[in-house]
Amino acid sequence: MQAKEFLMIPGPTPVPDPVLAAICEHPMAHRSKEFSQLLVEVIKDLKTIAECDTDAFVFTASGTAAMEAAIANTISPGDKVLSLISGVFGARFAKIAEAYGASVERLESKLGEPISIDALKKKLSESKDIKVVTVTHNETSTGVLNDLQAIAQVIHEYGALCVVDAVTSYAACPLSFSKWKIDIMVTGSQKALMLPPGLSFVFVSEKAWQFHAKSKSPKFYFDFARYRKSLTEDTTPFTPNVSFVAGLKTALDMIKKEGFPMIYARHENLQKTLRAGVLGMGLKLFVKDQYASPTITSIVPPEAISVNTIRQSLKEKYQIRVADGQEELKSKIFRIGHMGYIFERDILMTLACLEAVLKDAGYHCPSGIGVGSALSSI
Amino acid sequence: MQAKEFLMIPGPTPVPDPVLAAICEHPMAHRSKEFSQLLVEVIKDLKTIAECDTDAFVFTASGTAAMEAAIANTISPGDKVLSLISGVFGARFAKIAEAYGASVERLESKLGEPISIDALKKKLSESKDIKVVTVTHNETSTGVLNDLQAIAQVIHEYGALCVVDAVTSYAACPLSFSKWKIDIMVTGSQKALMLPPGLSFVFVSEKAWQFHAKSKSPKFYFDFARYRKSLTEDTTPFTPNVSFVAGLKTALDMIKKEGFPMIYARHENLQKTLRAGVLGMGLKLFVKDQYASPTITSIVPPEAISVNTIRQSLKEKYQIRVADGQEELKSKIFRIGHMGYIFERDILMTLACLEAVLKDAGYHCPSGIGVGSALSSI
Repeated sequence: MQAKEFLMIPGPTPVPDPVLAAICEHPMAHRSKEFSQLLVEVIKDLKTIAECDTDAFVFTASGTAAMEAAIANTISPGDKVLSLISGVFGARFAKIAEAYGASVERLESKLGEPISIDALKKKLSESKDIKVVTVTHNETSTGVLNDLQAIAQVIHEYGALCVVDAVTSYAACPLSFSKWKIDIMVTGSQKALMLPPGLSFVFVSEKAWQFHAKSKSPKFYFDFARYRKSLTEDTTPFTPNVSFVAGLKTALDMIKKEGFPMIYARHENLQKTLRAGVLGMGLKLFVKDQYASPTITSIVPPEAISVNTIRQSLKEKYQIRVADGQEELKSKIFRIGHMGYIFERDILMTLACLEAVLKDAGYHCPSGIGVGSALSSI
Repeated sequence: MQAKEFLMIPGPTPVPDPVLAAICEHPMAHRSKEFSQLLVEVIKDLKTIAECDTDAFVFTASGTAAMEAAIANTISPGDKVLSLISGVFGARFAKIAEAYGASVERLESKLGEPISIDALKKKLSESKDIKVVTVTHNETSTGVLNDLQAIAQVIHEYGALCVVDAVTSYAACPLSFSKWKIDIMVTGSQKALMLPPGLSFVFVSEKAWQFHAKSKSPKFYFDFARYRKSLTEDTTPFTPNVSFVAGLKTALDMIKKEGFPMIYARHENLQKTLRAGVLGMGLKLFVKDQYASPTITSIVPPEAISVNTIRQSLKEKYQIRVADGQEELKSKIFRIGHMGYIFERDILMTLACLEAVLKDAGYHCPSGIGVGSALSSI
C-alpha cells in the first residue's frame, strides 16, 4: 500500500474531504432557486474576502481565462498596456494583451525579485499613454510576493487601470480590492480556495466598467456585462459548474469559520517554518525574506543533486509531490506550495522527507536539522 | 423525507454514482504522468464517439465557450458567416459571430421545425462569399433534430466551413465528424456524457486549421493551436479540471461498455416511448415525428393548465424537474430531457407523474392512459 499522494505544489492544492463530498453530491439544475441562492451566497463571501465593494463574477474556466477576460473587457486594439513581469505568470498577462492587439510594454524584475516601485514610477512618468497595467500579486513561478498596495497606489495616481492576478495570493494573505483601488482582480479555485481547478473569479471596480464601455475587443463568454445582467436575476449567463459552486460554498464556510486574521497568520507561519527548516538543512532559498511569498517557497538544490532526483524521490518514497521550476528556472529550483488546506504538521513532514531524500542522494547534514530548525523558529 | 431530485431537463442530466465517485477522488497534479495518461485516453474515446480522424481538445469551460472558440479560431472581422437558426442556440451562434465582427446572415426555420435543405442551397448559391456556416445539430430550445449529414454535405459542396453545435446530440445519436465532412464540432459534459457542467470539447478538421491560420480574431485561452501543441506532450496549455477529466474517463468506460448501436437505440426508444405516452394522454407534441429530437421532447400543455403549474407540481409532488420553454416559447411549451443516464423506467415514471399532476390541475383522461400508451408502443 502507498500513502495518498500529497500535493505540495502551487496548485492544485489539497481539497478537504467535506468539499469533495459537496462536489460529489448530485448536480442541481442551474436554473433553480437552490442554485441561485448558492450563487448569491458564494459571491457575497468571495467579495468579503477580497474586501470588494463592487462586482464579482464566477467563471466556469481556469484562472488564465479570467486573466484573458480582464484584458478582453477593458482594452481595444492598439491600446498601450504595461505588464509588470516578475516571472512566467506576469509574462503570460503580457502575451494575452498582445493576443488582443495591445501595444505592450514590459517592466521586468530580476527572477526571484519583486517589481521595483521606483522603476514603475519612472516607467509611468515616461510613457504617458499607458491605459492598463497588469500586475502579478504573487508570482507562482518564483515565489515572490509583489507589494500590491504600493503598486496599485502608483497606478491609481497615474490614472491607468490596475489589473491584478491574485490567483495564488487570494484568501492566503491580506489584500483589499476596494481600499487599494484595484480595478480588476482575478483568482482561481485550485489554490487557497481549496477546490479542484475549474472555476475562476473576477472582481470589477466602477472604473473598470468605464473601460469596458469603450473596449472594442470581441468577447462573449467572458463579457462582464453578461454576468452582471444575469446576476440581477441571481443567475449566470451560461451553464456554470454547479458542482464546484456547491463545493465552493463548503470551502468558504470552512474559511469563514477559521476567520481572516487566523488564515493569513497560518500562511505566514507556514512560510516562516518552511524557510527556517530549509535554511537549517543548509539549502539556499531562491527569494529573500522581505518579499518571500506566503504560499510558495522556491528552493535551490544542493550542488550535485538534481531537482529531478529530489522530486522523483519525494514522489516515489513518500508520495509527496513538489514542483519543478518553470522555463528559465526549470531544473534550477524546486517549489513547495503551501496554500489552502495545509498545516504546520504538513510542513514538518515535508521537511523531514526532504532531509531523507537528500541524504539518500549523498547530502550531508546533521540528522533532524531541518525539522529542528523549523521547530526552533516557531 | 423527499425523493432525490430527478433531472429530466436538457442538462445538467443525471450523473451516475461511479462518475460522481471518480470526480470526488482527490484531484491529481495536472502535470503528472497519471493525468497525461488519462487525458490521452479520454481524447481517444471522445474521437471514437465523434468518428473523428483529426484533432479533439478538452476545454475547462461551458459549451458556449466551445462555440465561441469555434468562431474565434476561424473568422476575421468582416468575414461573412451564415447562421442556421432553429431556436435559441442557433441564434446564440449568430450572436457570438457578431461579437467577433462577422457579417452574419441568418437562415431561420419556423420554431419547432428544422432547417430546410432547399433553403440552405438557395441561400448559399445566392451569397457566394459565405466563409463559415454555423449549424445546430439538435436544437435544445425546441427539441428539433436537424439533418446534419445533409446540411454538412451542402456546406461542403459550397466550400464553406461547417461549424456544428452538437451539445445535445453527441453520444446520443449517430453522427460522423469525418465522414460527414464537418469542420468544427463542439459538445459539453453535462448532456449525454453524463457529467456535471464544466467541460466542453471541440473536434477540428484539417480544413478548419487552414481557416485558423488566416483568422485574425484575438484568442488565448480558446486558441486551438495552444491545445494542439500541448497535446504533443500529452498535456493541456492551462490547468484543466482534472477532477472532471477523471469523471469523464469513468463515464466513457460506461458508454463503451453499453456500446454504440445500443446507446443510440436506447435514446430513440426513450423518445418514441415518451411521445407515445404524451399523445396517449391527449397532449400535443410541439415537433413532428420526422424531425423530433432523440434527447429532448417539447410538449404543449392542455389549455387552461399553465406550464408553470405542471413544472411546479412535478417538482413539489414528485421532485421531478422538467424545463420551461425559452424566450418566445416560455410558458408555451415544457421540455423533457432524456439524454445520457436515462432509461425506459424513467420515462414511464415521468409519464405517470405527469398524468397525476395534470389530473390534480383538473385535466381529464382515462387513468393510466399515458403509461398504457407508452407500453403499447414498445
